[in-house]
Amino acid sequence: MSTNRGVFITFEGIDGSGKSTQARLLADALGATLTREPGGSPGAEEIRRLLVEGDAGRWSPESEILLFTAARRDHVEKTILPALDAGDIIISDRFADSTRVYQGAARAALRGKVDLLHAAMIGLEPDLTFVIDMEPAQALRRGLARDHAEDRFESLGLGFQEALRAGFIALAREFPERVRLVNGNRPVATVAADVAAIARAFLEDPRHG
Amino acid sequence: MSTNRGVFITFEGIDGSGKSTQARLLADALGATLTREPGGSPGAEEIRRLLVEGDAGRWSPESEILLFTAARRDHVEKTILPALDAGDIIISDRFADSTRVYQGAARAALRGKVDLLHAAMIGLEPDLTFVIDMEPAQALRRGLARDHAEDRFESLGLGFQEALRAGFIALAREFPERVRLVNGNRPVATVAADVAAIARAFLEDPRHG
Repeated sequence: MSTNRGVFITFEGIDGSGKSTQARLLADALGATLTREPGGSPGAEEIRRLLVEGDAGRWSPESEILLFTAARRDHVEKTILPALDAGDIIISDRFADSTRVYQGAARAALRGKVDLLHAAMIGLEPDLTFVIDMEPAQALRRGLARDHAEDRFESLGLGFQEALRAGFIALAREFPERVRLVNGNRPVATVAADVAAIARAFLEDPRHG
Repeated sequence: MSTNRGVFITFEGIDGSGKSTQARLLADALGATLTREPGGSPGAEEIRRLLVEGDAGRWSPESEILLFTAARRDHVEKTILPALDAGDIIISDRFADSTRVYQGAARAALRGKVDLLHAAMIGLEPDLTFVIDMEPAQALRRGLARDHAEDRFESLGLGFQEALRAGFIALAREFPERVRLVNGNRPVATVAADVAAIARAFLEDPRHG
């Protein structure tokens, strides 16, 4: 990583894993900017509404990954790169790994198209990614307990959540240099302490931050 | 083209060239389904609103081609392919050639990304494309004379329209097997008669329709 540049940290995991809570707690601990996907910039939030509102099946997987990539491009241009250029730490609740894992779990043949779109139109990867790992049965209970208007990603059932969990674990093996798998089946404060320790060690490494 | 399949015809040209009028007249003459881009299906029309409303500069060219491709994918899936599978003639006012020419004229380096997205996510090409060619000064007068709410593509000025015209002429050279260049600097009925004659000759060719 070049000097005079910020640090880009992402949180990934299945719905109900606690990743959004952990992203917020780490942003508070580090004084970092917090953002999210899909969304994170005014244009991307408009695209998000197309994705999360209306019938779950109204977009094909191909249309959906194009919309996710369009939203991500706007999010990167308008929010993430300006923060990095200013030398900030920016933390995103989900990023490209979510698209890789969700679309890969839904239809394995799509992973190639996801990678092609990412390489051609996005390029950016996080410096550090936390996968908050949790048993799907527990995550599903937590997810369903929340009063969510945007529930389409949480209505997919236990079998799909198990495929997603396997996808996130595989992701940690695929990108070992940046992905840290954290056990989310513990009290929130315990998980947060682990996450903060990993993040601080990363930032204090003279090769980063 | 396989048998038991319809015919896909598109109209292209600069704003004010009369292509929309010609698309409608040919659809009436052939009893064909008429559609348009961006839009042409309920989901694609929602994406169209993101593209044509709001500040002209709010999307980068890269975000814009991702949104156009997402809208096109939905349009192809929901409107064009079902019509072709039913054996219909379907006529679209603009299709992928517009993206090739507009983005190529705006920033030549983007043409490669447009082609990559088209190959990976769309694939479909028209059977027959009419480029309604017109002098930009005349087309601009006609375009500006109309009371257009969605005027961002018409507010780009004469120099840009000339680059677009050159792009459409180059397109006819690039895809000579399907693109017909028609002189639009003539009365509407004269242009329509030429277009209908070309279309009927194409449809009567035993290799088509």
